[in-house]
This record gives sequence, C-alpha cells and structure tokens, in this order.
Amino acid sequence: MINNSELKYIQSFAHKKHWAEESTFIVEGPKMVQELINSNWTIKKIYATADWIQAQGVLPVQVVEIDQIMLGRMSQMQNPHQVIALAEKESFLKPVPYHETFSLLLDGIQDPGNLGTIIRTADWFGIKQILVAEDTAGFYNPKVIQSTMGGCFRVKVASVNLEEVLSANKLNVYGALLDGASMYETKMESKGFLMIGNESKGIGSQLAKYITHPISIPKYGNAESLNAAVATGILLAHWKI
Amino acid sequence: MINNSELKYIQSFAHKKHWAEESTFIVEGPKMVQELINSNWTIKKIYATADWIQAQGVLPVQVVEIDQIMLGRMSQMQNPHQVIALAEKESFLKPVPYHETFSLLLDGIQDPGNLGTIIRTADWFGIKQILVAEDTAGFYNPKVIQSTMGGCFRVKVASVNLEEVLSANKLNVYGALLDGASMYETKMESKGFLMIGNESKGIGSQLAKYITHPISIPKYGNAESLNAAVATGILLAHWKI
Repeated sequence: MINNSELKYIQSFAHKKHWAEESTFIVEGPKMVQELINSNWTIKKIYATADWIQAQGVLPVQVVEIDQIMLGRMSQMQNPHQVIALAEKESFLKPVPYHETFSLLLDGIQDPGNLGTIIRTADWFGIKQILVAEDTAGFYNPKVIQSTMGGCFRVKVASVNLEEVLSANKLNVYGALLDGASMYETKMESKGFLMIGNESKGIGSQLAKYITHPISIPKYGNAESLNAAVATGILLAHWKI
Repeated sequence: MINNSELKYIQSFAHKKHWAEESTFIVEGPKMVQELINSNWTIKKIYATADWIQAQGVLPVQVVEIDQIMLGRMSQMQNPHQVIALAEKESFLKPVPYHETFSLLLDGIQDPGNLGTIIRTADWFGIKQILVAEDTAGFYNPKVIQSTMGGCFRVKVASVNLEEVLSANKLNVYGALLDGASMYETKMESKGFLMIGNESKGIGSQLAKYITHPISIPKYGNAESLNAAVATGILLAHWKI
C-alpha cells in the first residue's frame, strides 16, 4: 500500500519544478523499467501490479504492489502499463575524452520528444555522449526519458557550456546548416563533434562560429526544414558510411 | 463574432469521431495557414486575431476576427498563435502512376506525430505520394496535420489496400526490416516502393511477402529500434545518394 503523500510525490513529477529539482526521476512501463534494471543506474523503488511482480521474480530493490487503479493515478502516461520505477539521477563526472570519440552537441532543442528521440537515435549509432546547452529540454523530463526507449541509460547526456568545450578542444566540428556543403560530398571523420541546432532557429551564431565543416542534407522537395531528430539520424547514418 | 455553436463545432475537432467524419479539417498557426493559402486546397473560413488580419491583407475567403481569449478557447494547441483555418478535405483521385514515381508505403504507423513527421520528411526528399494502410493514424487528425509542417498540402496521402496495390504493380519494393541487407550495400532505384512498418511491430507478414529488397539500417549501438520517422529519413537520404 502507498499512502497519499507518496502518491502526491510521484504525481508531482508531471511538473518541471519537481522533476528538475528532485534527486530522483521516474521511469514507466515494462520495457523502460527492464532497460533500467539491466543498466547500472540505481533504482530506489518500484511500484508494480501483481502480474509484473510475478513475472519478474526477486529483485534487489523495494517493490510495492499496486493495483491498476493506483497505477492510473500515479502514471503520467495515457495508457499506463504495469510498472513505475523511481531511479537516482546521475551526474556526468567522467566524459569520454573528446578527442577519442564522436560527440553530439545539441543547441537549444526545445521539444522533449525530439530530445528523447535524438538520444534513442544516438544510441542506435553507438554515440557515447551528447552535450547539451543549458537551454535544451531537461534530460530528466519524464517525456524525454520515455521517448529515449532506454537510450538514456546508455548514452551519457551532459548539460555543459558548449562554447567552453568547443574553444578548448580543437577538433572537427560538423554543423548541420541549411547552406552547408552537401553531406554526400562531405566525408565525416570518426572523431569530433556533430552539432544540431534548434528545430526552427537552427544553430545560434555564438556556436556556429566554431563549425569547421558546415554540412547540409540536400533538399529535393519543398519542406522548409527537417525535424531535428530526423536530421540527426540522417547525419549519423552518413557518418557511419 | 462567432456564436456558441460555431465555437463548439471547432472545438469538436479534438475528437476523432468529429475530425474523421467531417468534410473539413483544422489548420492552426500562421506558418501552417500560410502554407494552406499558398496551396491549391480550398479554404472554407479563417478565424484570426486583428494583427494577423492586418498583416495578411485581403483574402478571397471569409475571415472572422477573434480575440486572443476566443483563440485560446477554439485552439487545440498549448500555445495558440493568431489564426485557425477550416479547409476542405480532398480525396486522392489521381495518384501518380506507380511505375513513374517512388512511393512511400506505411504499414500501421500508430502515432500521429510520427505520421506527420514522416510526411514532412517525404516532402523534403521530393516524394509525391504516400500510401497508408487503413489502420494508420488518420491523415486528417489535427496532430498529424500540424506536425507535417505544410507537407500535407504537397505530398498526396492516400488510404488504400496496400496488398492490392503491391500485387497489381510488380515494382521494386524496398522494405525496412531489422534483418534486411545493409542499406550501405543496397543501391535503391529511383522508381518503386519503400515500405516502413509499425513503430514496435515492424512490417506485418501479409505485406512483408511483397518485399523484393529487404534493407536495414546497420546498428552500431544498443537501441532496440529506431523511431519510424527517423528510419524513413535515413532511408530516403540513402535513396537519394
């Protein structure tokens, strides 16, 4: 059984003030919670229906049984499924050294679903870390976490001062710009940075000046722009050629 | 001024029963309404704030001035902007002959935002038509229309019996399958079909048997799958190489 204050605490993760300031975050649904269990992130508590608990077996973490009605009251999803977990936030203490990897840099991605889908896409292509500007949709927003489909437990996402990182690390900086060189004519090296800008404004001038290789995805039709997650996927697929 | 029954009529487009059965559909915001005005789709009526009307000049369509409060009441968006238009639905009478073009086939895309983003991406790459199975998220769902970013007025989207089309037109059918041949080793011809499956279930077996070229996007990390719109973008970018 859970009491009213515990229910209210979980429900509060719908609000930014709460999810941004708490030391824990919410993970929902059997698929995402399985990813969490398989990861080395710390689980604080699990709330689950009897069928999930039975199928799961013994876990080294407190599991509270709830019924479907309570699940519906706790959940932020339209169709809540079986389980909600509370996990501990992690800070990003040890980045992979920038010159040893290919990091994704996000400038001002505003939409939580887009950020989550970018993390999921980065996870597909084996990207180890994503650097986000302070104004990017908060990583621990439940909408971001859910749309990563587990990528949030594998790809390190750090909120940093992008200008400081770029000025201190002189590496290839591929930047997605509408007037960049066609990606089909650009060979992308295996190490460096790929910078993706805001859905409508693109990359800000403060950061654009660090781009060493402006690249674009050639347009054959009439759309004004591509979705940021779609553009990221296309450029990462090209990077892997 | 608009009366209460008109307000209720517009508000009803939030419900599937209404948007699916009406002969009109809703388009919101200055960018999308501009795309509608630039298209050859028929506009029935426009509701807009004074600043939008002033900036727009004379239009050959009825424009009703509303204030910000009424806009907020009529709109389905979190941050409504200036204008809502009612447009006439179009039926898909004259498809481009299948052997003359490259058509996208969608099997069971459930998420309206995904369907909209796929249409937007197709528009970027110059795709002329998309064929969707009957179970695909309804094209005239306001969430679909808005996330196409105008692509809905340029790319023809038809709900058809995909099996009938595939069995009657013996063309190359590229199908996105997790165990398909690497797209990097597959040359995609300029004419034919590209089939994209459901977000979690992929392409159903009924349709998969028509695939002549199973292709996959190689995975380098640990994500279980890619978002359907991201996968579409990657495959269309590859098709254009």
